[in-house]
Formats: sequence, structure tokens, C-alpha cells
Amino acid sequence: MSGRGILRFPRDVRVSGRASAVGREEYRGPLGACFDFHDESDRFGASTWETAEEGLGGVVFNLALNRAGLGYDDVDLLFAGDLQNQCVASSDAYAPFGIPFFGLYGACSTFVEGILCAALALSGCPALARAAVVTTSHNGAAERQFRLPLEYGGQRTPTAQWTATAGGCVLLSAAEKDAQNGEKTDHGVRVSAGLPGRMVDAGITDAANMGAAMAPAAADTLARYFAETGENPADYDRIVTGDLGREGSAILADLLAVRHVSLGTRHRDCGAMLYDPARQDCHAGGSGCGCVAAVTSGALLPEMESGRFSRVLLLATGALMSPSSLLQGGHIVGVAPLVLLERA
Amino acid sequence: MSGRGILRFPRDVRVSGRASAVGREEYRGPLGACFDFHDESDRFGASTWETAEEGLGGVVFNLALNRAGLGYDDVDLLFAGDLQNQCVASSDAYAPFGIPFFGLYGACSTFVEGILCAALALSGCPALARAAVVTTSHNGAAERQFRLPLEYGGQRTPTAQWTATAGGCVLLSAAEKDAQNGEKTDHGVRVSAGLPGRMVDAGITDAANMGAAMAPAAADTLARYFAETGENPADYDRIVTGDLGREGSAILADLLAVRHVSLGTRHRDCGAMLYDPARQDCHAGGSGCGCVAAVTSGALLPEMESGRFSRVLLLATGALMSPSSLLQGGHIVGVAPLVLLERA
Repeated sequence: MSGRGILRFPRDVRVSGRASAVGREEYRGPLGACFDFHDESDRFGASTWETAEEGLGGVVFNLALNRAGLGYDDVDLLFAGDLQNQCVASSDAYAPFGIPFFGLYGACSTFVEGILCAALALSGCPALARAAVVTTSHNGAAERQFRLPLEYGGQRTPTAQWTATAGGCVLLSAAEKDAQNGEKTDHGVRVSAGLPGRMVDAGITDAANMGAAMAPAAADTLARYFAETGENPADYDRIVTGDLGREGSAILADLLAVRHVSLGTRHRDCGAMLYDPARQDCHAGGSGCGCVAAVTSGALLPEMESGRFSRVLLLATGALMSPSSLLQGGHIVGVAPLVLLERA
Repeated sequence: MSGRGILRFPRDVRVSGRASAVGREEYRGPLGACFDFHDESDRFGASTWETAEEGLGGVVFNLALNRAGLGYDDVDLLFAGDLQNQCVASSDAYAPFGIPFFGLYGACSTFVEGILCAALALSGCPALARAAVVTTSHNGAAERQFRLPLEYGGQRTPTAQWTATAGGCVLLSAAEKDAQNGEKTDHGVRVSAGLPGRMVDAGITDAANMGAAMAPAAADTLARYFAETGENPADYDRIVTGDLGREGSAILADLLAVRHVSLGTRHRDCGAMLYDPARQDCHAGGSGCGCVAAVTSGALLPEMESGRFSRVLLLATGALMSPSSLLQGGHIVGVAPLVLLERA
């Protein structure tokens, strides 16, 4: 096995806590009842959309700790990120907690990037016991930073995605593989393996079609994963992408078809699941750092804890670009890290 | 030892390659002859400052591989970051190389954050053999993004720092501790330990005084490090911060004095070293993701390889903020991860 391949961890890394929080549209969607917290004003106690995202981050992180009966001192490392310039929603939200901090930027892929980094860190240092991963996004902050202020009421194209006002946090704990995992809050879900994403540049320049930019990266990761394992999609209960949306999911299916891989009915996309297209005007579906984080924490992990799903591949997809890079002729580069979640 | 303390790595993580590249002002400075590459036009083959930074990143990464006799396939993981919105200089620079990628954002602390993440990852997964860490900054891109376009010719306050047009790359390789490190390009320098930074909010809001925002984080990290090890600054050949500048370095000395710690003549700051205040109008010194990266790769590591320094503490300091967070009343939060570099 080369170092370019699937990463497996010497320690037993398990989910030991989780929380999710969303705004108004997300609560109105099909998964609304799954989330631990919602704020129908989208304000989260703050007076701007940017600081509202900080409020959202604080809620979701504190809630994960509260539910696990843990305090700030129980978290050895915090991996966090968001979409705001300089990831400032994360630094402003989590600075007061005094936890050793790693800031990440992987656009909408940051949540799975964080799980992978946290699993590697916990495995890489026996003194580390517990890490937190938290990512957020806010529709009002992201839309005016990347596109136009909401007040402008601009028309959107059918391929456009709707940045979710959402956040999710998972706590991960590690024990030696030959020892019993001593966490009282063990959720019975293990991070068994991971595959970091390679950046894929498919030449996309349309910021209103992120799905097209991210699908080639998701196809690259899945093709590498199945080639190395010799497994196929039928070996998994769910293969979850977040957040290609409907447009990107269709492109992913096409790109995998030419490689003779079909995800079939096992595929779900967090962006496509978050809103109801019949009732909500969210075009190709949800996106944003918080989308996959909230759907994983609020909907996917509970299904694994209940025993309904035993083996799940979770990929987050990121569109790496900035408004000025596109104005200067740059492309939107995709990246899609993957983790394998299994019932312990 | 708690998980909050100093992190030590089960595998033997060593520097196996390095390269640095700078622009015109940095080449004219006291360290000019140390750097592997310079472009006096600051353009690096590109037509905008933002894309010039991508060119710079490509040069420094390729150069590190060239000098080590390695190719893209020899790098298992790439940890990279920069200061541009959405870290787009990194994604656009390194996407063509097809290397599994982790994007980081720690402002000017990203280089040491990356070394720490890479050391944890190499230790966390036996299949991983080699990781690269690369960070860049460009004066023209950063000044117009964070402050004003260069063409405006705005006055600067004495505490302001000058964003370096610079980049640095280190390659890190791991072997089991009981095996001989088989790297032909072993530079004889080991990453022995690390201490992640905690975010410290000292209430600073002046974007022209980053040193004041970062020094409290550096003091926090150093105080924790010396308290846990029971060592003192005299046990090290150099304690290198990057990049507090002259203002931040003076504040750090004051903050450590009240904790009865004196770094004395062992302290060097990459930002203060990069320019000559008598000849160059760079105010409190250099800053930017590329400053500590270029000075470490170009000047510090060669001094360790030659045997002049055997034990070095390297801290990078980051000022976490965005122009809009400051307009909305936010503070500049500091963070300062640390690594211990030792002659192997």
C-alpha cells in the first residue's frame, strides 16, 4: 500500500459526540426535525450575517460538548473552518474557548478534511484523547461575499446552489485498538479509514455551477477508493456526498458511468437532501461548509447509531475559488476528501 | 502528559527537502543571498499580483522537489495555505500536481501549523512516507486585499508590517524510530515535538499593529512550553518567532518578563530579520505566510544542517481577522503554534 492510497489509523477513532444547528430555510426542509437547534431569525443573537455565523458556530460547538457532558478542557484539539474571508467566523467563534486550534480551508469539503486531519492527529500522538471538528456557513454572509447581497434579489440560474445556514460538530475520541474504548459517550461509530482529495481542475468558471466543478473531484476520489479496495458500491449502505446538489450529483453519475461504477440508489447528497425542491426555491440544492456538517451530525450519524446503516462512505466536495480569482481568469478547482464510517 | 500538552511523534519525522523564493525587496534585505530564487519584477511570470503569488508557489514547490531529486508522485500529502481570500493562491498553484491536498488557514502561522499537521499525519499513518508543507504571500496581493492598493501610496504607521513577497517549502519524511531513516536527502534535522497554538484575543483592533495582536499568543505558547518541559530559553540555540516584527517582539519580551521568562539574545524574529530598517522602508518588519516559510527554509535550516544550531524552537504567529470583521467590530485574534527542531 503506497502512501498515496487509503489511510488507516493505528488507533480506534470513534465518534463521541455530535450536534447540528440550522437557520429558517433548513428547518423548513425535509430534514428539519433532525437538527438539534434552529433559529428562525437566522440571527443567532447577532446583528450582522457574518457575526450570526459566529453565533451559530458557538451554539453548535457548545451543544456538542453539553450533550456529551464535556467541557472545553476535555477537547485536546479543535479543527475548524468556514467560508468567510480569512475563515474569520471560526476564529471569532472559538477563540474564547482556549482550545488548541487548527484552522482549515477546503471550501465545502472542510468538514471531512477536518475529520481526516483529526483522525490522523489522534492516531499520530498517543497523548491526544479527543478532538473536535466544526464547520459552519451562513446564507446571508456567503451570498454577499461570493455573489450579491440578498437585498438585491438577483435572479439565480437553475444550476446555482443555496448556501446553507447551518453548522455541525463532531467529537472524535481515540483509544488503542487492543483496548476497549473507554468513552462513556461512545456513539458506536468508528472512523475506519480515509482518502484525502486531489485537486481536480475541470476548467469550470461559472460560480453558479459549483456542482460541475466539484463532481470531477468526487469521481476521482471514489474511483481511486474502489480501485484500491476492490470493493464496489454495493458493499456500502450509503455513499454520501456533500454537497454536489442535484446538478453535480447527475454529473458525478455520468463521470462514474464511463469508469463502469454505478452508485445507484445508495447515493445520497447532503445538498440535495437539505431542501424540498417542490416547496423551497433552492435551485440545485444546498451548499456551504455547514451543509454536510449539519446533515452528517443531524441525520447520518443517528441512522448509524440506530443500526440502520453499518458502512457509509462520506465525501465532502469543495469548490476552491474566490470572486477575484474568477475575475482574473482562474478556474474553480474541486477537491473531495473521503472517510469511511463503520459501526464499531 | 495530557493531550493539551506538548505533542511528540511515534515516528522519526525529518526534513528531507527545502526551498525558498522571494521578490525584490526581500532579495535586497540582509538575508537576500540565502534564498534559492528571486524575481526582481515580483511578477513570477504572471500579469496580476494574485496570480504572481501562484507562480511563486509553483516555483518554490518545484524547486524543493528538484533539489531533493523527487517528483510529484513521491509526495503523499501536501499541506498548503496563503493569505488570499479562500486561500486561492494555494489551490490554483498546486492543483496541477495532483497531490492529495489539505488546505490550511492560520494567517501568518500557517507554515508551522502545516509542519505540525504533517508531522501528526506522518506519525498517524504508517503508510505515509513523505509530506510537503508550502506557504506563500505576496505584497501586492495582500496589501490591496487587506489595506489599500500599492498605487495609492498610502502612509503607513510605524507599527505596520510589510507583507513579504516570499514563499517556502519543506519536505518531511518519516521512518520508524527504531529504523534508520532511509532518505537519501535527509538533512539531519528532526521535527521532535510540537505545541499547537491557542487563540488569544487581546482586544486589538488596529490592522496596522499585528504585532500587538500576535505577541500575546506567542507568550501563551512559550509559557506553556517552558512550564511543561521545565526547561528555559538557555536550553536552546535559537528561539525563532515569525513574524512578530520589531513591535511585536518588544511586546513579547514584556509579556514574558512578567512571567519571569527572558528569551534574551537567543530570540530572532523572521519579520525583523527580513529587511534592513536602515535601508528599507519596511516599518516594524516583514509579515505574511511566506515570511517565516522563506526564512526557515532559506536561513534557519541551513544553519542547523551545518551544525551551528542544534536545538531550535520555531513559532509562527498568525493574526486572525478579515477587513470586514474589523469593520463589524471584531478583534484581531492571535495564534502561535510551535515546533521543536533538533539535529538528528
